[in-house]
Amino acid sequence: MIVVMKAGASQQQIDHVIERIEQLGLRSHVIVGTERTVVAAVGEKRDGAKQALETAAGVEQVVPILAPYKIASIEVKKERTIVEAQRLKVGGGHIGVIAGPCSVESREQILEVAHVVKAAGAEGLRGGAFKPRTSPYSFQGLKEKGLELLAEARAATGLAVVTEVMAPEQVKLVARYADVLQVGARNMQNYPLLEAVGEAGRPVLLKRGASATMDEFLLAAEYILNTGNTQVMLCERGIRTFEDHTRYTLPLASVPYLHQKTHLPVVIDPSHGTGKASLVAPMAVAAVAVKADGLIVEIHPDPEKAWSDGYQSLTPAAFQQMMAECCRVAEAVGLKM
Amino acid sequence: MIVVMKAGASQQQIDHVIERIEQLGLRSHVIVGTERTVVAAVGEKRDGAKQALETAAGVEQVVPILAPYKIASIEVKKERTIVEAQRLKVGGGHIGVIAGPCSVESREQILEVAHVVKAAGAEGLRGGAFKPRTSPYSFQGLKEKGLELLAEARAATGLAVVTEVMAPEQVKLVARYADVLQVGARNMQNYPLLEAVGEAGRPVLLKRGASATMDEFLLAAEYILNTGNTQVMLCERGIRTFEDHTRYTLPLASVPYLHQKTHLPVVIDPSHGTGKASLVAPMAVAAVAVKADGLIVEIHPDPEKAWSDGYQSLTPAAFQQMMAECCRVAEAVGLKM
Amino acid sequence: MIVVMKAGASQQQIDHVIERIEQLGLRSHVIVGTERTVVAAVGEKRDGAKQALETAAGVEQVVPILAPYKIASIEVKKERTIVEAQRLKVGGGHIGVIAGPCSVESREQILEVAHVVKAAGAEGLRGGAFKPRTSPYSFQGLKEKGLELLAEARAATGLAVVTEVMAPEQVKLVARYADVLQVGARNMQNYPLLEAVGEAGRPVLLKRGASATMDEFLLAAEYILNTGNTQVMLCERGIRTFEDHTRYTLPLASVPYLHQKTHLPVVIDPSHGTGKASLVAPMAVAAVAVKADGLIVEIHPDPEKAWSDGYQSLTPAAFQQMMAECCRVAEAVGLKM
Amino acid sequence: MIVVMKAGASQQQIDHVIERIEQLGLRSHVIVGTERTVVAAVGEKRDGAKQALETAAGVEQVVPILAPYKIASIEVKKERTIVEAQRLKVGGGHIGVIAGPCSVESREQILEVAHVVKAAGAEGLRGGAFKPRTSPYSFQGLKEKGLELLAEARAATGLAVVTEVMAPEQVKLVARYADVLQVGARNMQNYPLLEAVGEAGRPVLLKRGASATMDEFLLAAEYILNTGNTQVMLCERGIRTFEDHTRYTLPLASVPYLHQKTHLPVVIDPSHGTGKASLVAPMAVAAVAVKADGLIVEIHPDPEKAWSDGYQSLTPAAFQQMMAECCRVAEAVGLKM
Repeated sequence: MIVVMKAGASQQQIDHVIERIEQLGLRSHVIVGTERTVVAAVGEKRDGAKQALETAAGVEQVVPILAPYKIASIEVKKERTIVEAQRLKVGGGHIGVIAGPCSVESREQILEVAHVVKAAGAEGLRGGAFKPRTSPYSFQGLKEKGLELLAEARAATGLAVVTEVMAPEQVKLVARYADVLQVGARNMQNYPLLEAVGEAGRPVLLKRGASATMDEFLLAAEYILNTGNTQVMLCERGIRTFEDHTRYTLPLASVPYLHQKTHLPVVIDPSHGTGKASLVAPMAVAAVAVKADGLIVEIHPDPEKAWSDGYQSLTPAAFQQMMAECCRVAEAVGLKM
Repeated sequence: MIVVMKAGASQQQIDHVIERIEQLGLRSHVIVGTERTVVAAVGEKRDGAKQALETAAGVEQVVPILAPYKIASIEVKKERTIVEAQRLKVGGGHIGVIAGPCSVESREQILEVAHVVKAAGAEGLRGGAFKPRTSPYSFQGLKEKGLELLAEARAATGLAVVTEVMAPEQVKLVARYADVLQVGARNMQNYPLLEAVGEAGRPVLLKRGASATMDEFLLAAEYILNTGNTQVMLCERGIRTFEDHTRYTLPLASVPYLHQKTHLPVVIDPSHGTGKASLVAPMAVAAVAVKADGLIVEIHPDPEKAWSDGYQSLTPAAFQQMMAECCRVAEAVGLKM
Repeated sequence: MIVVMKAGASQQQIDHVIERIEQLGLRSHVIVGTERTVVAAVGEKRDGAKQALETAAGVEQVVPILAPYKIASIEVKKERTIVEAQRLKVGGGHIGVIAGPCSVESREQILEVAHVVKAAGAEGLRGGAFKPRTSPYSFQGLKEKGLELLAEARAATGLAVVTEVMAPEQVKLVARYADVLQVGARNMQNYPLLEAVGEAGRPVLLKRGASATMDEFLLAAEYILNTGNTQVMLCERGIRTFEDHTRYTLPLASVPYLHQKTHLPVVIDPSHGTGKASLVAPMAVAAVAVKADGLIVEIHPDPEKAWSDGYQSLTPAAFQQMMAECCRVAEAVGLKM
Repeated sequence: MIVVMKAGASQQQIDHVIERIEQLGLRSHVIVGTERTVVAAVGEKRDGAKQALETAAGVEQVVPILAPYKIASIEVKKERTIVEAQRLKVGGGHIGVIAGPCSVESREQILEVAHVVKAAGAEGLRGGAFKPRTSPYSFQGLKEKGLELLAEARAATGLAVVTEVMAPEQVKLVARYADVLQVGARNMQNYPLLEAVGEAGRPVLLKRGASATMDEFLLAAEYILNTGNTQVMLCERGIRTFEDHTRYTLPLASVPYLHQKTHLPVVIDPSHGTGKASLVAPMAVAAVAVKADGLIVEIHPDPEKAWSDGYQSLTPAAFQQMMAECCRVAEAVGLKM
């Protein structure tokens, strides 16, 4: 940690900072610059110390040196994590594709989609049973009935079931049916939920919050990892910016950046990331080119009649075409699908 | 709802849109423009219809006309809502001030602060017992012990206790001690939590999510109102933008905007909204000038030793000075404090 | 244009809006909804009308139906524009690559880079002679001397010279040496400059402003097109968001979106778009996968000694490797490089 | 400057950084931490060094310690700058108010407005003669005719004329008529223009770019100050964020922040900052409460008929009321108007 003193900081203020650093169990190093004095605090402490110091009189700013997360860091674990569930494999040079409707709507719908997903060569089936909806007047999901239908679709196809869980008290129920527990973007910092899914012992797909920094995203993963659960996938699904021609802005640079910082696999969601069906396939292909470890895509047999997110859902035909193009690009960049 | 067709939309596509509109129980009006055709859909439907239509072939965009929220709207209830709890009164020309530490740390700390708060003329005591922290390695709150200390501070001062609740299963416990249940920014779209606090029958302070639009914010309030609970305060606490010299960007225009759209009172949090102690008092004074209905401010007897958020906490002396300046401005704009 | 009246708008207010619409030379259509009245204004007018109407009493909002740009629109010109200069070809299924240093620093540097660029199979040479720098204390470019060196490099390699022009009075000078005039992101809305480069009759590379919407971007292009100059390339170079781990956020969805709206070719700048050398190549490859019409990339023989932007410059070796990977992906998606 | 090495940086890489620091004329200090090594570079250098170092092998990041601007800094000049022109006075405890139409439209219009402005107690007259417009099809201003009308209005009222200049070659012409040269938000980083207005020797109102950080804003001011012109006002006019209910987001915390960093006066533009007439007065009052040094406000005798920006213009009556409320709040916070 580097404590930058204000230009006119007094010796007494500098001494006080040194004293505080030592009280915190860290060692201090003073560097007298031409315009400012800087005090370095050396040690392993990651929390608390920074804010204690930045409140001290005469301090301009405190610059942390260490990343705030540990278990998620590639400095701690060099081998890349591969997440597996049923036939789904995400990471380790293999791009796992999860597809399905926004919401489970009926037995026919989910079974039809599951067969489309499998036929196109994907390995995971997504589908919402518990739906977080912006409006209380929107369809909220079929709940346990939806979970049963997902399990039936798995039995019929062997696809891994990926579905969202919205509250700690739902975790047990959802984990009974799902292969992968999804934590939605709105819940990325719902810490009781992160701990509960961690403890459920199932692989977790953690979506990035719409305004989360990378450090916050990795710290949310750290909450799950900290329970001992190592099967965590990071899902980039777009951030909120001033752009109004897409639903969110999908920053694919997250993939190579995260690959430099963490061993966890990175999944791209081009459906929420763009919010427009016509942009989904191009961005899925680009995600493969940038070496994402997985894709999660919304598809629907008849998007116009979907109960939610139809505008960003691909038809089965469009999905098959997307998969074909993704496969060609995967090969070109040395990955498997 | 206005359905704007693409420039080259066929008559068949237009007819299909008309048919869909009527299937949805709405009436349609076709307007043939010079470059595009527009189909208006008339009726009360607020949900589902939009997305069904924007997926139809030949549709460029669908523009909603009605606000997506109802109970929160000033069109539905013209009289402004006043929220009251113990001696705290927020709204109706009265600015309610809630102050206290980020976290409850000890009996001495919270009692000392409570007396400072009361002496300065404020009416609510904030203090976190369950703390949502970005890092799993940060202090997570004293939990029930913290709630007991808050209740003791209320007994000693008559201040209303405002404290955060993080999960549905905590609501009963927290509601046993608190006068006002706070839903934090990270949980603004935690719908099971919104429903649980709504049903608890206590006033709720709902913080705006860091990247929530006003419609999303009001729809979150609508989840609570929809349970029958009418005592909801909206709290603007800053949004995430590219600005890096403050922790968040605090948009005070939210106050007059919300006053035009909703009857619910609006509280400003200048502590999180700026993240720097030196900016808190100026923004609190500005919030009064823009006619906020309330303020929520972090103070600490010794910010440098605070267990959390010290850098944005006011000292007791600074808080007293802030209150004095706020009072002068309140009087200048015709409000009471 | 759709004028949405407020819920309680009076008949007199509605009549006034109708009258105004007709004064503006448009036809009006009134639609009485269940909660609000809407007045559609039909006609070709693109400007002025909207704002005249949104100020009228009783008006809630005015929704434009037509895109604000015309010449840039794919509705007006269906054939895609191909931009050519020297051996550079951008668009029409051909990905044109422009590469070179941030700043021209010396004869040796620019000649060395030009040979690297050519050898790697790229067709354009970038290099700043007039440099817009955030700080007045930074290196501001070699000015005309830099232009001369660029021309010499062109003579030696046949590469098209792409260089920035910062002010209308520099246009003549720069156009004497350059094959393509670049308008930087900071100047995207410098209208006198847009008109001056338009009139210079050279192809223009127009960079998106860091906070420009797509409509603003296309309207800036419209300023150039409006002078009669049809050779305009749109360059997505990243937008300013809350993300702090990259210099800007590079939204590749701009490529398919712009391809749906305009006939102009789209070039991606992964160097400014990420601001980190280690992220440039992955994003360049992704840009090819999403079918960008061109790339513009910063390279330097010795990035550590670059006078500007070294941290985001590729070494010659890294650039060659990037080109090889881009070629493989271009082939996979059916494009030529 | 603090150079943070990567976790596994080799001794050779550390030695190389030390060598580079010394080549740059700075002194180095090595601090060996538990997980990383940090090298401090001590000296006055503000430019170039940072980027040279962050490109070196084994470097994780480089953290600057000194602010990048000098002349604008309050560390260099402690006395606050007061800007004066005609009867306008901005700073030094005096809030200067500039008001007028977006565009000068006619002799009658500007004279009528000027009298309204003066009668309400304001001291500056704004009005665009050269208008930067997003669309090439929008009204672009009366140009020199507009300047003449502004001068006539000044002659009639004694108000200081504040008007925008868009290009270096217009500066001489505009400076012949104007008392204050305005640089618009779109041109905040138009460096040739900043230098030209600096050299014109007139006071400058510099608007913040819609996505400019505070450091970028102050560095733009530094370009002007660097020409020897000391009469610079900083104008906060709102930033571009995800918010869609206002035209921009107006961050009033800029006022106290800038007061801590610079001696230059800070002017607030609530008209562009909100983009809605109904929000302008509340935000103007709040700007006074937060101790802005000035206000710039759009007013129009008949906003509905304004040629530009009518939706954010106040009527004369609304402006008078705004001024009255601002005066009461100014008094409450110890400022003069």
